[in-house]
Amino acid sequence: MRVTILGVGLIGGSIGLAARARAGAHVCGYDPDEAALQAALELGAIDERASDLAAAVGGAQVVFAATPVGVLAETVREALAHAGSDCVLSDVGSTKLALDDARADPRFVGGHPLAGAESGGVGHARENLFEGATWYLTPTVDTDAELYGRLRGLIERFGARPAAIAPEVHDRMMASVSHLPHVLANVLVAQAADALERERAGERDGDADGERGGERVGEGDGAGPISIPPSLADAIRVAGSNTAIWTDIYLANRLALGEAIDDTVRGLQTVRAALDRADAAALAAWNEDARAARESLLGENAP
Amino acid sequence: MRVTILGVGLIGGSIGLAARARAGAHVCGYDPDEAALQAALELGAIDERASDLAAAVGGAQVVFAATPVGVLAETVREALAHAGSDCVLSDVGSTKLALDDARADPRFVGGHPLAGAESGGVGHARENLFEGATWYLTPTVDTDAELYGRLRGLIERFGARPAAIAPEVHDRMMASVSHLPHVLANVLVAQAADALERERAGERDGDADGERGGERVGEGDGAGPISIPPSLADAIRVAGSNTAIWTDIYLANRLALGEAIDDTVRGLQTVRAALDRADAAALAAWNEDARAARESLLGENAP
Repeated sequence: MRVTILGVGLIGGSIGLAARARAGAHVCGYDPDEAALQAALELGAIDERASDLAAAVGGAQVVFAATPVGVLAETVREALAHAGSDCVLSDVGSTKLALDDARADPRFVGGHPLAGAESGGVGHARENLFEGATWYLTPTVDTDAELYGRLRGLIERFGARPAAIAPEVHDRMMASVSHLPHVLANVLVAQAADALERERAGERDGDADGERGGERVGEGDGAGPISIPPSLADAIRVAGSNTAIWTDIYLANRLALGEAIDDTVRGLQTVRAALDRADAAALAAWNEDARAARESLLGENAP
Repeated sequence: MRVTILGVGLIGGSIGLAARARAGAHVCGYDPDEAALQAALELGAIDERASDLAAAVGGAQVVFAATPVGVLAETVREALAHAGSDCVLSDVGSTKLALDDARADPRFVGGHPLAGAESGGVGHARENLFEGATWYLTPTVDTDAELYGRLRGLIERFGARPAAIAPEVHDRMMASVSHLPHVLANVLVAQAADALERERAGERDGDADGERGGERVGEGDGAGPISIPPSLADAIRVAGSNTAIWTDIYLANRLALGEAIDDTVRGLQTVRAALDRADAAALAAWNEDARAARESLLGENAP
């Protein structure tokens, strides 16, 4: 099987490694970034480098577009223009409605593997990145059944679990389970940094209010690292993730993400009202609901 | 040195272990929970059990009130009534303004170690729980200097870093860095569970919209675990934490927490507006600010 990867970053490189190791495929790669393409060849993520997109796509039986979300629609459009009739094309973008035009083509099936890593780039690619991961696919009534089966089978060989989904359902879900956590991390980290900065400023000001509360006790005087509660460290871990990638993701899914943010604001205002009323029963019930939801998502013995 | 622990849970038990191991103290414990008190004795967190609070406090040179936040004020009041003049009393509650009455007593210094664990109870206590942790103290102009020095010295023996702070500054800071992350985790987990439930409901409904998007591809049909993005797993880790403890904490700090929630809502509405305008520059700048704030809190090489 001839597989082509357009964009050899973390995901594209991992697809190449998995396709070679697990499906015995011959993998051709193309990337406008010469250094990334050469690294992919040296790391064994691809068998050969193509000189341009058209050359990469010609003769391929499966094409994965793994370029950044901001240029993905263009990559897919170009790839469809150069691919043969016996070729299935997919992408790995984290939003799916944005590729609505391509979905009318019987050769195209949108895709999104729920896999990644904190560090991008082909240097972090690995052949088992998709092991056990859900891999969403957005086939339509127009999709060619044989081509779809070929793609699905290949993804299963990668160790992933393919799952078909409507693109609008996908985008709404991803807004809540992936994009919103990044938004909340960004908002929270700014607030926490402000609060700690105010505390340190209070230390420097000394006891302006007539109490000893303003001075730091013991040596060090603010020089040491701040103790961050583990809850905060977890909550801000993804704050400020790769700006280029995430700006594109936020924009590509801005409608669904906007609605998810509205839901969050409503949720916060409900808690705020319970605090105002000092409503212990409401707060306890809300916390118990959260515990149940957490267990449904992570399992009872989740870390 | 004679140290008394009122409430032998995770924190009280760890103080007992640290006081015995690191300060050579004789530790007396009291807890209305007979089983917890006996466990503390067997685990070596205390040298002796007291039959009631008055007996535990009498003769002590240092007393730590480590009962739940909801009964802490009462514990401190009773302890002050029974303690001698050469005794310093402190607490370990996560809010400090709530103990304002006790702060007029020269023997009392509010305290809050930034240490804990996901699992409570004396069974999880350990003598190195406070190693390297910030331990906030709220002395006032009325605090006896010698007693304050005794408490501070003992806390340093535990390996903690004592830091004096005004109680209102402490409570505002904790609202942002500790209580708010729990609120956001609770709000987010409910939303994410709803979104995934809707996705699974969509699967069961089949192709209502004429597309294949409604069906699950491959075997399993929803029986397997859902792939949760790591960003979500981190963000909901503390959702639904111990309801009794956290309801008390939310209520004890409800004013500062309410203001922190208002700040979060404002932050979310700013992002929402940038999404509405499809304002890539604003989103990118906001994300870069979040990255800088994250690095200031966690360090550049944070995991």
